[in-house]
Amino acid sequence: MAERVPNWLKQRVLLTPDRPALFFEGTAWTFAQLYEKALSWAAELKREGLKTGERVGLLVQNTPDAVCVIHAVQQLGIEAVLLNHRLTTGELMWQLTDAELAAVVYDPVYEETVEKLEGTFVRKSLSSPLPAEQAAGREEFWLEDTCSIMYTSGTTGKPKGVRQTYGNHWWSATGSVFNLGLQENDCWLCAVPIFHISGYSILMRSVLYGIPVRLYTHFDERVINESLQKGEGTIISVVSAMLSRLIESLEGRYHPNFRCMLLGGGPAPKPLLEACEEKKIPVFQTYGMTETASQIVTLPPEYSLTKLGSAGKPLFPCQLKIAAPPFSEGEILVKGPNVTPGYLNREEANQAAFTDGWFHTGDIGYVDEEGFLFVLDRRSDLIISGGENVYPAEVESVLLSHPSVREAGVAGVAHDKWGQVPAAFIVEREPVTEEELRQFCEERLAKYKCPAYFIKMDCLPRNASKKLLRRELKVPLD
Amino acid sequence: MAERVPNWLKQRVLLTPDRPALFFEGTAWTFAQLYEKALSWAAELKREGLKTGERVGLLVQNTPDAVCVIHAVQQLGIEAVLLNHRLTTGELMWQLTDAELAAVVYDPVYEETVEKLEGTFVRKSLSSPLPAEQAAGREEFWLEDTCSIMYTSGTTGKPKGVRQTYGNHWWSATGSVFNLGLQENDCWLCAVPIFHISGYSILMRSVLYGIPVRLYTHFDERVINESLQKGEGTIISVVSAMLSRLIESLEGRYHPNFRCMLLGGGPAPKPLLEACEEKKIPVFQTYGMTETASQIVTLPPEYSLTKLGSAGKPLFPCQLKIAAPPFSEGEILVKGPNVTPGYLNREEANQAAFTDGWFHTGDIGYVDEEGFLFVLDRRSDLIISGGENVYPAEVESVLLSHPSVREAGVAGVAHDKWGQVPAAFIVEREPVTEEELRQFCEERLAKYKCPAYFIKMDCLPRNASKKLLRRELKVPLD
Repeated sequence: MAERVPNWLKQRVLLTPDRPALFFEGTAWTFAQLYEKALSWAAELKREGLKTGERVGLLVQNTPDAVCVIHAVQQLGIEAVLLNHRLTTGELMWQLTDAELAAVVYDPVYEETVEKLEGTFVRKSLSSPLPAEQAAGREEFWLEDTCSIMYTSGTTGKPKGVRQTYGNHWWSATGSVFNLGLQENDCWLCAVPIFHISGYSILMRSVLYGIPVRLYTHFDERVINESLQKGEGTIISVVSAMLSRLIESLEGRYHPNFRCMLLGGGPAPKPLLEACEEKKIPVFQTYGMTETASQIVTLPPEYSLTKLGSAGKPLFPCQLKIAAPPFSEGEILVKGPNVTPGYLNREEANQAAFTDGWFHTGDIGYVDEEGFLFVLDRRSDLIISGGENVYPAEVESVLLSHPSVREAGVAGVAHDKWGQVPAAFIVEREPVTEEELRQFCEERLAKYKCPAYFIKMDCLPRNASKKLLRRELKVPLD
Repeated sequence: MAERVPNWLKQRVLLTPDRPALFFEGTAWTFAQLYEKALSWAAELKREGLKTGERVGLLVQNTPDAVCVIHAVQQLGIEAVLLNHRLTTGELMWQLTDAELAAVVYDPVYEETVEKLEGTFVRKSLSSPLPAEQAAGREEFWLEDTCSIMYTSGTTGKPKGVRQTYGNHWWSATGSVFNLGLQENDCWLCAVPIFHISGYSILMRSVLYGIPVRLYTHFDERVINESLQKGEGTIISVVSAMLSRLIESLEGRYHPNFRCMLLGGGPAPKPLLEACEEKKIPVFQTYGMTETASQIVTLPPEYSLTKLGSAGKPLFPCQLKIAAPPFSEGEILVKGPNVTPGYLNREEANQAAFTDGWFHTGDIGYVDEEGFLFVLDRRSDLIISGGENVYPAEVESVLLSHPSVREAGVAGVAHDKWGQVPAAFIVEREPVTEEELRQFCEERLAKYKCPAYFIKMDCLPRNASKKLLRRELKVPLD
């Protein structure tokens, strides 16, 4: 029997219509106001001919309008494909085609990008005038229905659409609340993109918990610090690069009601954690991915230094195991009702990714005697640059499509500001300038994926079966 | 796809082994200690030949041993039938037979009761010595599996076993936390019976939330007041009769960390709520039943006087409707993943109780313009006496089995201490003394079900189709 629950936003409005739902640039929206606007958007999308079961791409930035549209498509039972606005036209076209999008709703700042997209689909700017009428919200959500889709690459090159069901988001929020608790004064700061699971999941928790989100279009450490010092937020989601900038510019302490710095996107360096300890900032390190609808393993702050480098223990509904003997390294497998039912239209990838309900993360780690997870390598070769995932295989396949490139390998290099940046290692077929390769990449890849370095090699390190050993790719010291 | 989650207690021990799980008479148990004892009990029950899928009756009072056994049967996948120790031998035999119990585990104080029970089933005292070995806990719980069974009568006379799945308890705990929140210092006081859903659900929340239960065998208002004044608990579940006694004996205020007086078992009188307001006691009135695995509708304290008499709004995963036009009175129907899948072996009752997933509570009420539920009558004629449900039909059927009784009607009468007590209205076939009827009832019914008054009538009030009009049964003023 598939579980159904009341339409989230509608239920929230029934229960606590006048509680604040959203703060943005000095303006506040109640849940009732958010719902009203979402229903107007739903009416407009219906007028455009969009139907339950179809998919709509959302090319948005963190704005209240984008939040309303995210809720609007849920009201209609339309699946949202969250598009990363940093992608190139070619990358967006891949997702558009793969997910068979019926429409793209976009922030007016991305008008130019949308104009370049080919195909017959509805183009709808967030600045469009809305009709006076409102659509009716659905009564219930089925937990097994797909709610959102976000593309990730993994090791295979071409991005795959990760399906996140209503149930995935529900259980993720439940697992989080059993761990982090829920207080009457809670307010979650969101300066991470809402087209990523880190931001999207904050919007879902807000509705389920009945707490406000304080939304920011961009991350500005001075603005966030000021907000947290004034006591405007109790929880914030960050990645290491953001936390470093916060700490560097922080003078004094945060307000005593600030209770959770939720730190994702890879292990944090010890000096950073020590600085947080010194400033009494409660850091919860966490491990999660698009496929687990955000956190799946979290470390409470009392362990942040004694279990340095650990991502913690699974959330209550979740399980974790290592494909290796106890306490030794191996692939991290996870299981839980927050784990995706699979990639969109990828039979083969899904068969490879799941064994008896266990999802193969591709990441390498171990679990210590007390049950704490240590992640050693994200997806073998995953590069995390400023909170964005960069998949070497994807960058390599672009490099290899250049006629002058015979072999290509991509690996992460430590970077002060972004944590890591990608570096390209090239074996030439015929001479080619770094400048030409750089331009070639920039035309085909989002900026954060473009290699910061191009290093020419005679040959690339490979194992006996000629598999590229990316971990042996090292940028020579100047 | 049926949802599975990790074995609750095992997962809790993996996550936070050393957190306190239980306080009882000056002793504390951690979750690890609770689990250890539960596994010893599981080994002992296995040794006695009990198997997964069988049912075990638990005739227990509020003690740590009873808590361990409740967890032990969950470890083995055995369904627990929670027996009310106030029942007579005949009443217990009905449940024993109906649920085909393979064993009864009992508190030594009920040894005499158990000796009187007939049949071949394992009898196991809580004072039995436990083996040195421990059973292995199951890895996962299936949410659709039956976890516990509690008998209720309803309007049909013979008690029915309400099946509560693991999912019912899970979703109940989730709905509660989305409403009441969860704080690091939370501790739930349990002075209600753990064989009732009010107490049992506290044990489940404790494991899911990772918070301790402070357990009491009996309700003593002075002891509870002292505990709440010392700050030993943040939440307590009570019924009106308990709350009255607490308020009467309370001098001064509760500790500031006390945050929730969860008040079930029918609407509270206004003077009581005003007294709570005056003493700054945050009362959350609530409506729920065995079939909804505890609360399903709850009123936050800010409305306790402005919405006087209301039970509040549904918990987040739950829905509510009235079988009547908007804002008018009718039967209360509820729906949600915390609602029982049905009564044990009662095809007909289940068909009558459910329509399209909506459960017919039998209670009468209305919902106002703002969505607040007002319960007017519990199950038409349900009498709630000191927190125990008394079903008139059940008492009437005992009275009617007496040869001198031609007609019988039972209704509730207001009572200072117990809220209500049952009163019997009798039409004699031949003369019979009140004393004889009282004794006849006491042999067949739990004491709290026995009528406090016996009123002889010439005829009983009935409608055109001769249906008894219990609401017209009134005790004459002296």
